[in-house]
Amino acid sequence: MEKNNLVRRSHCAISSALEVIGDRWSLIILRDLMFTEKRSYGELQSCEEKIATNILAARLVALEENGIIYKITDPENGRRSLYYLTEKGIDLLPVIIELRKWMEKHDADVEPCQYQLSFTNASRAKVLSAYQDKLRKLHITG
Amino acid sequence: MEKNNLVRRSHCAISSALEVIGDRWSLIILRDLMFTEKRSYGELQSCEEKIATNILAARLVALEENGIIYKITDPENGRRSLYYLTEKGIDLLPVIIELRKWMEKHDADVEPCQYQLSFTNASRAKVLSAYQDKLRKLHITG
Repeated sequence: MEKNNLVRRSHCAISSALEVIGDRWSLIILRDLMFTEKRSYGELQSCEEKIATNILAARLVALEENGIIYKITDPENGRRSLYYLTEKGIDLLPVIIELRKWMEKHDADVEPCQYQLSFTNASRAKVLSAYQDKLRKLHITG
Repeated sequence: MEKNNLVRRSHCAISSALEVIGDRWSLIILRDLMFTEKRSYGELQSCEEKIATNILAARLVALEENGIIYKITDPENGRRSLYYLTEKGIDLLPVIIELRKWMEKHDADVEPCQYQLSFTNASRAKVLSAYQDKLRKLHITG
């Protein structure tokens, strides 16, 4: 199986990262896997932003091919898949946190996120790392 | 003039941020404004990733409408516009830095970025803030 179906436009790290997650829906899916207990296709589809079913399906395949999420068969329902973050996916936490910080600073209309991670410059590394440890327990080591 | 043409799908800060910059080309343009001396339409179009001319034009309009960049008439060529980052645009530095860090960690094929900002957890805030000060001098206070 092709593990990585990138069409690389350059060898720049920023450009390559955007090939993988440079569309809003991928990051919405990752937000929900990081900050909610949604794991199934149906649960992920129920996001407030109303992701179209074909886009959700395509994004899940791409995220899996790029090693950011993996899926297992739901032990309680053999016809249902559950999606979990890989280590590479969990490492995207700082990107999502910085996006949220930026928008909260510059747009008075956004509501504070449901799941806040509060930190100062001094505590940032520790707080993010603790949340990533929590995600590892939920997604990887079970 | 409409300053902010967001079609808001939710009041979540992450989702709202992605409405504004959740496409790969916006961040490629911002990367070039942050890390190179490119300022004109023609210079921005010459990126290694070969941005299509209609996409570049549309993205520049959207970035300007959302207050992330502004344009001035080139004092040396009245028919040419030059694009600069606003404070809101400069504040996107951490997002781009985290994307780059993530890709450099997880993809052996990417080349180290031309313009490196090296920092540790302890020096991160200081290094980013110093680079943002440099960007302010180049883009805002002249």
